Amino acid sequence: MIRFTTAGESHGQALISVLEGMPAGVPLLAEDVNTELARRQQGYGRGRRMQIERDTAELLSGVRAGETLGSPISMLIRNRDWANWLEIMDPAPREGDAAGPRRRAVTRVRPGHADLTGILKYDRDDARDILERASARETTARVAAGAIAKRLLAELGVTIGSHLVHLGGVDAVRPTEMPSDLNAASDESQLRTLDADAERVMIERIDAAKKEGNTLGGICEVVVDGLPVGLGSHVSWDRKLDGRLGAAMMSIPAVKGVEIGMGFGAARVTGAQVHDEIEPAPGRARAGGVRRPTNNAGGLEGGMTTGEPLVIKVAMKPISTLMRPLGTVDMATGEAAKATAERSDVTAVPAMGVIAEAMAALVLADAMLEKFGGDSLTEVQRNLNAYLSHLAARLGS
Amino acid sequence: MIRFTTAGESHGQALISVLEGMPAGVPLLAEDVNTELARRQQGYGRGRRMQIERDTAELLSGVRAGETLGSPISMLIRNRDWANWLEIMDPAPREGDAAGPRRRAVTRVRPGHADLTGILKYDRDDARDILERASARETTARVAAGAIAKRLLAELGVTIGSHLVHLGGVDAVRPTEMPSDLNAASDESQLRTLDADAERVMIERIDAAKKEGNTLGGICEVVVDGLPVGLGSHVSWDRKLDGRLGAAMMSIPAVKGVEIGMGFGAARVTGAQVHDEIEPAPGRARAGGVRRPTNNAGGLEGGMTTGEPLVIKVAMKPISTLMRPLGTVDMATGEAAKATAERSDVTAVPAMGVIAEAMAALVLADAMLEKFGGDSLTEVQRNLNAYLSHLAARLGS
Amino acid sequence: MIRFTTAGESHGQALISVLEGMPAGVPLLAEDVNTELARRQQGYGRGRRMQIERDTAELLSGVRAGETLGSPISMLIRNRDWANWLEIMDPAPREGDAAGPRRRAVTRVRPGHADLTGILKYDRDDARDILERASARETTARVAAGAIAKRLLAELGVTIGSHLVHLGGVDAVRPTEMPSDLNAASDESQLRTLDADAERVMIERIDAAKKEGNTLGGICEVVVDGLPVGLGSHVSWDRKLDGRLGAAMMSIPAVKGVEIGMGFGAARVTGAQVHDEIEPAPGRARAGGVRRPTNNAGGLEGGMTTGEPLVIKVAMKPISTLMRPLGTVDMATGEAAKATAERSDVTAVPAMGVIAEAMAALVLADAMLEKFGGDSLTEVQRNLNAYLSHLAARLGS
Amino acid sequence: MIRFTTAGESHGQALISVLEGMPAGVPLLAEDVNTELARRQQGYGRGRRMQIERDTAELLSGVRAGETLGSPISMLIRNRDWANWLEIMDPAPREGDAAGPRRRAVTRVRPGHADLTGILKYDRDDARDILERASARETTARVAAGAIAKRLLAELGVTIGSHLVHLGGVDAVRPTEMPSDLNAASDESQLRTLDADAERVMIERIDAAKKEGNTLGGICEVVVDGLPVGLGSHVSWDRKLDGRLGAAMMSIPAVKGVEIGMGFGAARVTGAQVHDEIEPAPGRARAGGVRRPTNNAGGLEGGMTTGEPLVIKVAMKPISTLMRPLGTVDMATGEAAKATAERSDVTAVPAMGVIAEAMAALVLADAMLEKFGGDSLTEVQRNLNAYLSHLAARLGS
Repeated sequence: MIRFTTAGESHGQALISVLEGMPAGVPLLAEDVNTELARRQQGYGRGRRMQIERDTAELLSGVRAGETLGSPISMLIRNRDWANWLEIMDPAPREGDAAGPRRRAVTRVRPGHADLTGILKYDRDDARDILERASARETTARVAAGAIAKRLLAELGVTIGSHLVHLGGVDAVRPTEMPSDLNAASDESQLRTLDADAERVMIERIDAAKKEGNTLGGICEVVVDGLPVGLGSHVSWDRKLDGRLGAAMMSIPAVKGVEIGMGFGAARVTGAQVHDEIEPAPGRARAGGVRRPTNNAGGLEGGMTTGEPLVIKVAMKPISTLMRPLGTVDMATGEAAKATAERSDVTAVPAMGVIAEAMAALVLADAMLEKFGGDSLTEVQRNLNAYLSHLAARLGS
Repeated sequence: MIRFTTAGESHGQALISVLEGMPAGVPLLAEDVNTELARRQQGYGRGRRMQIERDTAELLSGVRAGETLGSPISMLIRNRDWANWLEIMDPAPREGDAAGPRRRAVTRVRPGHADLTGILKYDRDDARDILERASARETTARVAAGAIAKRLLAELGVTIGSHLVHLGGVDAVRPTEMPSDLNAASDESQLRTLDADAERVMIERIDAAKKEGNTLGGICEVVVDGLPVGLGSHVSWDRKLDGRLGAAMMSIPAVKGVEIGMGFGAARVTGAQVHDEIEPAPGRARAGGVRRPTNNAGGLEGGMTTGEPLVIKVAMKPISTLMRPLGTVDMATGEAAKATAERSDVTAVPAMGVIAEAMAALVLADAMLEKFGGDSLTEVQRNLNAYLSHLAARLGS
Repeated sequence: MIRFTTAGESHGQALISVLEGMPAGVPLLAEDVNTELARRQQGYGRGRRMQIERDTAELLSGVRAGETLGSPISMLIRNRDWANWLEIMDPAPREGDAAGPRRRAVTRVRPGHADLTGILKYDRDDARDILERASARETTARVAAGAIAKRLLAELGVTIGSHLVHLGGVDAVRPTEMPSDLNAASDESQLRTLDADAERVMIERIDAAKKEGNTLGGICEVVVDGLPVGLGSHVSWDRKLDGRLGAAMMSIPAVKGVEIGMGFGAARVTGAQVHDEIEPAPGRARAGGVRRPTNNAGGLEGGMTTGEPLVIKVAMKPISTLMRPLGTVDMATGEAAKATAERSDVTAVPAMGVIAEAMAALVLADAMLEKFGGDSLTEVQRNLNAYLSHLAARLGS
Repeated sequence: MIRFTTAGESHGQALISVLEGMPAGVPLLAEDVNTELARRQQGYGRGRRMQIERDTAELLSGVRAGETLGSPISMLIRNRDWANWLEIMDPAPREGDAAGPRRRAVTRVRPGHADLTGILKYDRDDARDILERASARETTARVAAGAIAKRLLAELGVTIGSHLVHLGGVDAVRPTEMPSDLNAASDESQLRTLDADAERVMIERIDAAKKEGNTLGGICEVVVDGLPVGLGSHVSWDRKLDGRLGAAMMSIPAVKGVEIGMGFGAARVTGAQVHDEIEPAPGRARAGGVRRPTNNAGGLEGGMTTGEPLVIKVAMKPISTLMRPLGTVDMATGEAAKATAERSDVTAVPAMGVIAEAMAALVLADAMLEKFGGDSLTEVQRNLNAYLSHLAARLGS
């Protein structure tokens, strides 16, 4: 069982990411993590902070001489402008803290954010006590943990990539054949899309939105190759891989929808158009010795992987912080007010794809260990390979 | 913390549903459960089995004199045609069991089902060992548990309903004003839709699909009223209510997509069109003393309830069992084959709405107890009311 | 991951036991369960109810043709005198239920029981609403689930037994060499002890206690043979097998203490007297190719199995229901009162050993699946054997 | 629900402690944590490292202006001699890492430690990869998290203390009346015992053991005052507070036994000598308006708190690292060898009491939040007080 925990406020001293339950012997360098952190920070339409924060993770535990130890892996990711925020975010009380309102207190709660729901739930006066944690900066720590899960999956023959398929009203066309290295291709693009024509239009939309102080959402597709048939389970509702992936994706800030395979499209056509026929293909052990010429199911049937590529679509709403302030309430007075206008990114959809990859990696690494057990990489590999050999023998290949 | 477990094969002796963690003192009759079981069985386009099985739950534990005790509530739901299946599904071995293949063994695995993934994962020869559990019949036990969660929620002022918004290519128009009792309205319809015009076209589609041995999918919308602001949390990825609801919905058999509020639609427009403005409304304590004239967020911001109606859309693919058999592999021989053609429903989307209500009820009852604690209904109510009074006082109402 | 849930009141209609997460293909007959249920009911000093209730489990799900399917295994264990209790324990309200006190209501709460703590926590007037679930009868459902875990462990070369080592002030002497089949030997004894001399004295104590309306406690020792080295883990507090076993044992009703190996005795001597030296023994693959001439650690070091026998001692207080009533409070009046005197067993320590075996089996089956993964018995065995071969190769055997 | 995670190797860069699920608004200063860390480091018989490491925790997240925010609280505790260990413990590979054995590799595995079980489980060659995490240094991070749980409990009227009751064969006499501030009294003693006479003999034993290169174990008692009746539950095995406390205690390194109240002693006497009678005491709301003149149950009945003091005894074996090396196997050669003799403490029992307090605090804070819910300190207090008022009204006080 893999467990991961993140901690840290957006303008606090640092983020912490702890990944517990990784097998020993997985090759791991800080660069493996930092490469993914850098991918999260790319993307046309990002604001100034992405420049300030060139995130790097320090491996504090769980790794020695470039290999995991089986013990919890903790990472420290410093917030670079901490010195400027110390007075505001200091864990220790400062003179006058009891007396007056907090420094840079936020009481005109911002629509679309956790500001209002959070201060009511947690009984706070200053929405900064909420928004610092609700900030998407937290996803940095997820990407760090996900990078390690990806390292494990890579050693087991599984690769995860993503690309942007919609931004701000513009659809990208999925290529008829996916590139063999999806991320190598999508990371080439400023928006992480495979459709260069669509990209041009999207960039125009971003520029226009920026001018009018508006923001844009979009959709990313995550594709996972190399999964063996039989991860997840049909036996109980909370073992179904669809549900576990759904939870992971819907937990990403600003995500409002998730689909597996055809998704909502499958609801609009007939069964004959949806179900993937099966044909023998003895050499394909990971798929159980069969092939499905179509993959409308997106790689999951009955809550389990089929061995075909896992395909997930994730929809993100536009960033909630607008330059054109929305109507709200000032919680200090109860009066109608305008939400604080803050400098903000126009869109974070390209980064969301990277985050979704990380979340998928964490779920799938967990599902792998669940099926194959194993406390060391060699043991996991041994058990996986024995399973694949057993599958290969089944259809007489 | 609420936990629920289901057990039982589709043609086994019975289904079992166990709900653990309910407070004591909640009024509960078998009829409360049976009413929901009957709702699950309605719907135009269902086949013969729905007539055979008039499901009823026997309360075996956790309830006395019409009130819950705080102990695990277990329910037995008998499969009425067990006598006919005893020989095939007997837990005990019968003469010849070791020697030959199982009775009514399924080896021509059906596309779109768990048949193939399941037998490979669990190393079975007969896909019946898988399909009996993967069958949607399991959802009966979910609806039973969900009915109890609904009873608790009702005592806390929360009501859950659903309606069908799409079927087989036909959209239903959402009424401009939702009926005050959603289920009273939708249960009037054979398809559980609020749009009588659309219903007529949908029924034509079902009849046509039936004639050609085809099946249809669709989309339901779940609406929850009366939730207080502040269920769920922004602090950790797995506490976000979006994720927990996403997992619950995606775990329903044949569901391929889920949306909160505008969902995928939010990815296609600008921030100015998406974010719900906030205005003071001191009388609305459950919403924290504010009102949002729009509810594009679908009742969740920052992973927490806003106090506005929670709105979830769930997409179901067409039923996988077609009368026109699909190409597959016979796992006994490894040869290409046609999947067994079986009598089947044309669509189960109306029932899926009822199942989605149940899953939502289980997640939300859990979220209520998480925030308000409480081991008896009076204690939960007392804590909820104290919170609402505190909220009411905040905006000086 | 194995999960198990029990449900049912002592005088309700039935008990339910659900075991979720078992691999497929494990041979399982109802007799395997019923044998263990019968073992729980034996023991000198038990009262009349043990005769009324010859417990048998009906396998409702998860098993077909004598093999597990991988799906949840649910069992129904009927309470035989249900007809006599129907009026008192009916889940449905009966005429007059609202008006007056419950039938056979208990308000003079019994010391040493959950009666008082339970009615205060759950806000009940009638302690029967609590005591029916707090009754040790619930352990029947645990033993049923444990019997299945034992079947799995047996297929993996692991056997679990127990014997009584203390009763009512009388110590049994542990034989210098343990019998090769521990339960075959201890089940021969009316008290499940290996020391026939001590047994005679214990029986005298039981007879004497019975005469004076008193009760007796005692200590059992559970011994598990055949565990491979490396179950559990040192890496996180809640993965340590000591803790997981401690939780399982301390959750048995009336248990007040647990020890691994030397236990409290280890606190009273020096390190030189406690720590087990290690010597090479290449043939012992399950112990990692070594031998420890002593086993003071009781088979656990660093939270992990060593491969030596796991030895756990469990202390049970005397049964709380005395014939000589204890002073208490009548919760209906607030006045001092005498607790109801009820017919009761004198001691349940022999049965407690069987329950402790079941709890150990559930924890260890879970730990096995955690390390070796596997969805079918053959897969678990394959992974275990590959691990043992790898260990054997390490010390060049 | 409270979750806590620790990370870090003994000679790594730092320890990390993350506490998730704390309500907002709890007053918290770094000093609150550091005071507990210092208490863990005291105790006669500790070696040199306790002087090197004056542990201090840096609050990295979850706290602002001296109050918790409801978000995960992470703490960094630096290992002060990291500079000296960098070469050995560097997460990054160094030149020659692949070629030869690790620096300061441990292959003569030490009996009584996780060394051997760990390298076999995790397939490592160098036992340092195991022992660095299995070291009792990890408990520093537990004490840090426990200190925060204690702060919460203190605000709810609950105090936790401990004292040493046995060391190396010497029993301390429990005073007839416990001091009102237990830790104020026990922390005065070098061994954290309340019996000054016993302490003198214990110190002699420690000095003697030191001379002969031996080590000593012992027993601590944890006492918790102010708990309200009704934490934990009887309804399901894993909700019983006995089991949850048992798991927490047995997870402390070197702990081999745990008892609640009379513990093993209750197994040796009759029911009449064990069960605590109950008498009316309307003013004692936390105990439900009753008093038990005795507290043999140790504050738990039916898996729930009674409102009387919770009393837990925890037995620790002698430290496993002896100066007189024990026989073992060199895993590099498979030959018999002597375990490395290392400088070590003679005993850590006084510190273990502080660790046991921390573990108890974490379990009990979780049980409080489970019963009373609440996202802010004021909400938890409000719900607790309403419950106490309700209890007070029950017995007409």
